[in-house]
Amino acid sequence: MSLTESSAIDIAKAASWASRHLATLSEADRNDALTALHDALLLKKDAILEANARDIQLAEQAVAHGSLNHSVLKRLDLSRPGKYDDMLQGILGVKSLRDPIGNVTLRTLLDDGLTLDKVACPIGVLLIIFEARPEVIANIAALSIKSGNAAILKGGKESTESFVAIANVISEAISTTRVPQSSVQLVKTRAAVSDLLAQDLLIDLVIPRGSNDLVRYVKEHTKIPVLGHADGLCSAYIHSDADLEIATKVIVDSKTDYPAACNSLETLLIHQDALERVLPDVAKALVAKGVVLRCDASSKAALMESLTFDEAKKLQDAQESDFETEFLDLTLAVKTISSSDAPLADVEAAITHINLHSSKHTDIVVTKSETVANLFMKGVDSAGVFWNASSRFADGMRYGFGTEVGISTNKIHSRGPVGLDGLTIYKYLIRGSGHRASDYFDGDGGKRYKHQNLEIS
Amino acid sequence: MSLTESSAIDIAKAASWASRHLATLSEADRNDALTALHDALLLKKDAILEANARDIQLAEQAVAHGSLNHSVLKRLDLSRPGKYDDMLQGILGVKSLRDPIGNVTLRTLLDDGLTLDKVACPIGVLLIIFEARPEVIANIAALSIKSGNAAILKGGKESTESFVAIANVISEAISTTRVPQSSVQLVKTRAAVSDLLAQDLLIDLVIPRGSNDLVRYVKEHTKIPVLGHADGLCSAYIHSDADLEIATKVIVDSKTDYPAACNSLETLLIHQDALERVLPDVAKALVAKGVVLRCDASSKAALMESLTFDEAKKLQDAQESDFETEFLDLTLAVKTISSSDAPLADVEAAITHINLHSSKHTDIVVTKSETVANLFMKGVDSAGVFWNASSRFADGMRYGFGTEVGISTNKIHSRGPVGLDGLTIYKYLIRGSGHRASDYFDGDGGKRYKHQNLEIS
Repeated sequence: MSLTESSAIDIAKAASWASRHLATLSEADRNDALTALHDALLLKKDAILEANARDIQLAEQAVAHGSLNHSVLKRLDLSRPGKYDDMLQGILGVKSLRDPIGNVTLRTLLDDGLTLDKVACPIGVLLIIFEARPEVIANIAALSIKSGNAAILKGGKESTESFVAIANVISEAISTTRVPQSSVQLVKTRAAVSDLLAQDLLIDLVIPRGSNDLVRYVKEHTKIPVLGHADGLCSAYIHSDADLEIATKVIVDSKTDYPAACNSLETLLIHQDALERVLPDVAKALVAKGVVLRCDASSKAALMESLTFDEAKKLQDAQESDFETEFLDLTLAVKTISSSDAPLADVEAAITHINLHSSKHTDIVVTKSETVANLFMKGVDSAGVFWNASSRFADGMRYGFGTEVGISTNKIHSRGPVGLDGLTIYKYLIRGSGHRASDYFDGDGGKRYKHQNLEIS
Repeated sequence: MSLTESSAIDIAKAASWASRHLATLSEADRNDALTALHDALLLKKDAILEANARDIQLAEQAVAHGSLNHSVLKRLDLSRPGKYDDMLQGILGVKSLRDPIGNVTLRTLLDDGLTLDKVACPIGVLLIIFEARPEVIANIAALSIKSGNAAILKGGKESTESFVAIANVISEAISTTRVPQSSVQLVKTRAAVSDLLAQDLLIDLVIPRGSNDLVRYVKEHTKIPVLGHADGLCSAYIHSDADLEIATKVIVDSKTDYPAACNSLETLLIHQDALERVLPDVAKALVAKGVVLRCDASSKAALMESLTFDEAKKLQDAQESDFETEFLDLTLAVKTISSSDAPLADVEAAITHINLHSSKHTDIVVTKSETVANLFMKGVDSAGVFWNASSRFADGMRYGFGTEVGISTNKIHSRGPVGLDGLTIYKYLIRGSGHRASDYFDGDGGKRYKHQNLEIS
């Protein structure tokens, strides 16, 4: 791991070379590096916590001067109970995941002695940019090595001392294994990132993890494919037939479990016929948790009838812009979906609103009808579409992926929570014994392809 | 299908709306549209051939004036024996392919009553730009509809009359089915393409099919992901132990079967220890087919010893730039790989040359050794890596995909020949009954995830 700032092209070239070597290593070789990484971080815990303490000290001063948010300070602190152990455990967790590389997903007999395999392989070189939390570097280094990719990492400036300390340890640990040392490289300055974003011939994928602004900046400034999401504008649609208890549980959890998360609810679409039967109880439960409701005229009118005077203080009038806002706070925009005579036209209206306003992250429907649910799940163009379940389930750990490098709202490659498999691509291998394509043609003397699916053992 | 030039944003919006509706249709609905498309093109054959004749007439004049290549004229002609029928048959071929949509590839029981499905779905809106051959429009329209994607098409200017005629027929045929008419739209001007390339919020993927210049232009001018390949610089490495007959068959086929194709051979790497035993026969066979060999010093010296005077006329001295040139013609660059004492260092040298010079399309190795072949297949970072088989097998029909929309050298999403599956992505669906994420935590009273893989029926 380079700790002095080499030029971007040298860093990218070293990563590219390392990625090619990594691609030829066995799972055992890659796992050995993870063990070494874990053991070294355990051994050097004191030195790393000392470095972290220096970051904390600077951050405390910044908080005192009002130039840093207190939540950033909290995320910085590696000495909080359990945090360092979780980081170590996370490395072993990644190590224990199924090898994402070498999997054959298609095997075809093209002709006698001529087989085609589609085999999972690493993407190559990843540039991963993230903010604050210093333990993320260990997790990302582990994910990259496990998936056979070289990684260039840039952390947030508040955690520079911690990063450098951890990076030193990772670098030293890797150097004792068959994984090339330049498989994990650290860059420290924003300028270095700008230069790296121009290396589209050497870097295969950029993963920005952090604020919407960071993601947008990266997308605007590179030709390299970007995996991630800027906004998380999640919506829920409560259909006319929704179960009251299910609606209340799902909406309250989606909105209040962790309002600052990208998979939290921002917009509630309520069917006109559920305004009196369902909305009041849902609203009361939300208001009890401190949620402010920005309502359109119909939903506000229904709630003014049913909420107490105190509860009604939490009602505000929605502006059109509220339905395009990721509040990341205890605020929820509420819009009424008109009932209709044409069958399912109401559901279509909800789908259309979501496709026009949501950020293709996660959207949910509350209904008793399987027909309504299936139409919603097919029609909503988002990475996650849930029926009668909280939007907060959109998460790699909760999906059972073991871990994630982030959540993607892309329409190609990887969508939703991205685990190890999202860091792979495939290649096609053909094995023959002198086979010529020119021998295969229609007509006299021409060979024919067999195209027979083979069992993958 | 819009035949007047609407504004790019209107076209993209119409396509986006159509794509959402397409995503909710059944396979039967999509197949019905393909049947209608086939029947209409059969019925309107005379009118379409008349339009095609007008394109041919203009093209003949252009050829006579020297402003158009004769091969373009030949590709334009839909009246050549079997060509129109092949186009019709192609539509039925696409219709008969397995539905790429709705496939569940992962099903996990998250907890009692809470399931997660990973389901294949359409990408959304495709912008497909291609040159000359007018029958391609029918094939691409069929692929798009079958995969549930809306398509905006731009054909080559030489085939405008044919395109408009075919597009009219497609448009009319679709309007009788449940597939929205704006699922397939045609644009005619290059200016319209420029405007469409700016619609990155509405268009999900661009597929340029045509010259390297076209692909490079598209990549330089859009933020939309681009699927395809600019260059096809394929290499072969003949190892020291290569079988002479296999080497000759594979290299001659790779180079001479269709030199203008992207999967043809451009660079031959020959192991030093095979210079005398293998290279002469391979070279003689190539020269007999009219191939010019641009050799480095070692390979030229070996061939000057063994070729006849007439054969040796086909030898030229290689420049460094020849190893980065896609000749698309009967020219082959030849480079010697030095033998080495360190085991496999020679193979590593061949891999390194290919990774630095090839275009990540298709590369091949000729060897008797499985160890050498496996190292080569893991180490070469290309969409196709073949052992003892011709590079010309890199093709969707030959792979058994039924058809292809092109060959991708991308490192993400789709790589190699792209069939129907390459035009899909997936979404995650969760079905619950009021499940809250906040109920799941370590400690007293917390629920635990089951994360149990379920059979996919």
